[in-house]
Amino acid sequence: MSATPARIISVDTHDIRFPTSRELDGSDAMNPDPDYSAAYVVLRTDAGDGLEGHGFTFTIGRGNDVQVAAIGALRPHLLGRSVEELCADPGSLNRDLIGDSQLRWLGPEKGVMHMAIGAVVNAVWDLTAKRAGQPLWRLLAHADPEWLVSQVDFRYIADALTPEDALTLLRDGRAGLAEREAVLLERGYPGYTTSPGWLGYSDEKLTRLAKEAVADGFTQIKLKVGADLADDIRRLRTARAAVGDGIRIAIDANQRWNVGEGIEWVRALGEFDPYWIEEPTSPDDILGHAAVREGVSPVKVATGEHVQNRIVFKQLLQAGAIDVLQIDAARVGGVNENLAILLLAAKFGVPVCPHAGGVGLCELVQHLSMFDYLAVSGTTENRVIEYVDHLHEHFLAPVVIRDGHYTAPLSPGFSAAMHPGSLTEYRYPDGTFWAADLAEGDKTS
Amino acid sequence: MSATPARIISVDTHDIRFPTSRELDGSDAMNPDPDYSAAYVVLRTDAGDGLEGHGFTFTIGRGNDVQVAAIGALRPHLLGRSVEELCADPGSLNRDLIGDSQLRWLGPEKGVMHMAIGAVVNAVWDLTAKRAGQPLWRLLAHADPEWLVSQVDFRYIADALTPEDALTLLRDGRAGLAEREAVLLERGYPGYTTSPGWLGYSDEKLTRLAKEAVADGFTQIKLKVGADLADDIRRLRTARAAVGDGIRIAIDANQRWNVGEGIEWVRALGEFDPYWIEEPTSPDDILGHAAVREGVSPVKVATGEHVQNRIVFKQLLQAGAIDVLQIDAARVGGVNENLAILLLAAKFGVPVCPHAGGVGLCELVQHLSMFDYLAVSGTTENRVIEYVDHLHEHFLAPVVIRDGHYTAPLSPGFSAAMHPGSLTEYRYPDGTFWAADLAEGDKTS
Repeated sequence: MSATPARIISVDTHDIRFPTSRELDGSDAMNPDPDYSAAYVVLRTDAGDGLEGHGFTFTIGRGNDVQVAAIGALRPHLLGRSVEELCADPGSLNRDLIGDSQLRWLGPEKGVMHMAIGAVVNAVWDLTAKRAGQPLWRLLAHADPEWLVSQVDFRYIADALTPEDALTLLRDGRAGLAEREAVLLERGYPGYTTSPGWLGYSDEKLTRLAKEAVADGFTQIKLKVGADLADDIRRLRTARAAVGDGIRIAIDANQRWNVGEGIEWVRALGEFDPYWIEEPTSPDDILGHAAVREGVSPVKVATGEHVQNRIVFKQLLQAGAIDVLQIDAARVGGVNENLAILLLAAKFGVPVCPHAGGVGLCELVQHLSMFDYLAVSGTTENRVIEYVDHLHEHFLAPVVIRDGHYTAPLSPGFSAAMHPGSLTEYRYPDGTFWAADLAEGDKTS
Repeated sequence: MSATPARIISVDTHDIRFPTSRELDGSDAMNPDPDYSAAYVVLRTDAGDGLEGHGFTFTIGRGNDVQVAAIGALRPHLLGRSVEELCADPGSLNRDLIGDSQLRWLGPEKGVMHMAIGAVVNAVWDLTAKRAGQPLWRLLAHADPEWLVSQVDFRYIADALTPEDALTLLRDGRAGLAEREAVLLERGYPGYTTSPGWLGYSDEKLTRLAKEAVADGFTQIKLKVGADLADDIRRLRTARAAVGDGIRIAIDANQRWNVGEGIEWVRALGEFDPYWIEEPTSPDDILGHAAVREGVSPVKVATGEHVQNRIVFKQLLQAGAIDVLQIDAARVGGVNENLAILLLAAKFGVPVCPHAGGVGLCELVQHLSMFDYLAVSGTTENRVIEYVDHLHEHFLAPVVIRDGHYTAPLSPGFSAAMHPGSLTEYRYPDGTFWAADLAEGDKTS
């Protein structure tokens, strides 16, 4: 340990891209050829304990370099900062980053700059949990409610959730925590799987993967829809035949439709009893989601993976526009903003079913749902975390799925760290994979 | 002229920053020290006619480099593209950029990536108008209504504005165009000025500049508010005393408040008869603006300079949340999206009073308001374009204000081009101004 207080001494960024578009994994009506990518950040300190903070923004390929540049623009806010102060109050960094009056112009609180803030704030929480020797879910669940409230930015949401509301929710949420933690450690947190349902898959592959999902213990699967109605009818019939009536089938349009179009499309799929329609239209269209919800009932409406911040989530709840709120660990401004969103959902009594998949989104978001179960909503009823079975092998502490449930991670931190070898191999364009690939391209072109 | 069709051969970007923070010009409750900046793009072709397309995103300093990187990420969509096809249908580029399935993840249609799209799309319209030998306002006003409709992306707004609605509006808008054009060329388009009202100014400077504004023919001024209520009361009293009862005084909180706080604050200023309250809260908060509007009536509610896209404007109109819609030429996806927004405003009968100032925003947005007057709304009643009197000297065709009116620009194009010397001097960090400034800083530190 150095004699002076430990400081953040480096903020290293990496442009990491995986060539997923070559396999049609991850194809949907709006994203036909994603190369799942991460704008990855590592915070290092001079504490001498070897602990680092890891975080990232998930992207799907092109533009990952822009995201890396945005993370880099936050560097001056971090370098030289006291590690102890930062980890005692990550909210102070969150406020500084969101409040940077010049960077704020590039949002505010949306898009590239806001996702960069999320990556950095999440990296600080990763470091905080590692220093505490706790997985993040456990650190949050056992944290003092008043301290948790101090971590939330109530600006622009105080008309729907006050600090007093939040404190009451968190104090009430403590009752029965120990019992729930025992349940969580034994059973895990329920998941559902999107792996069978990508648009690029054949009906045979869909049937096989859907049956496997049920055999693996999942009680819900999800299908991508929205490219072609006749195809969707055939695929949904195929999936329903494969899984039977007892399994929920969610459908996901990835923002493909206008409001009226979405209502008609979902009604045309009604005979197959879809559980929810996800992202029927633009994530910005609060009133549009409310209209869709009214138009497709009893099919539920879900959205959130592209919802930019707590302010839009607030309005989705105020307008009664959604039945299911889908947080994403790496789209909004990090753990602090997701605390606000979980509390808003609890206040309005709307279940949270996180978006995951991509690169590392499962690893991150499980911590937030487990915290929600232990200390906020107190239940897993009608709550499931999305699961997609790719790219986990690149993480030091990959998610572990058992009988359709996420097993509670026990390693300290936010499960964000990738293997150093993966960073070396998939760094774009100079990692070993891409350098070889680009050289091969030069040869054949 | 070359024998083969002309192509886009280069997309050059420039990080241009002006040291405005040293003068307190532009200071408001959220932006105490802006360095007005432009992420600037120049499209060059091999047409041999010397014509270039210029465009930019306005920022306020830090992060301008991120914005430049985002514009650079669009380069592959432009290089090699046929100039003739591009200028015959800028909407095709607009659709390609917004539809890039990988870049879309970084928005969609918001923040850094979307503003980059706006810069590039505007540059194409600049080139289009130059090739036509027309100022953009005139090109748009005389364009075929069906072609204009083809330039609009109706995705996510068709529930409020259909292509048929748009065509009707544009056909009806033609009646009396020649008469209005004569009026425009003689009188110009009414402006209002924000120059007196920055937070950093003394009461004496406020009084002097407010009186000058009236003497210069402006019938509306604007004051920044929201930092301190006692100060605001004093400043608004000072301004009202300076201009008398016949001049409108708008006030602008730059997103400073929560909903309830904003309502109380504006009510406390009611005795000075503010005309509109601008940006009372988050630009994302549609329902919040509706609540503020109900709470502060008869003071009008205005917003838009930070509204990310047509989808949010659509909802502000659907929810009856605003009395005044403030387009910005360089925040949304460029001319094509602003066409959609002008048509939405006309459909809902809400006047458009553009945001301007910054760097070059006056130069750009005047074209859109003049087009709106000539061919959409057909009126300038209760419509004014913001005017701020700085940084115009850097433009080849700066705005000309006469008797409180924007004079119709006659140079071909979108008035976007800066002097080459300004680019050389204020390019960050290697332009002559910044290189000298940074060297000076090294000496004194």
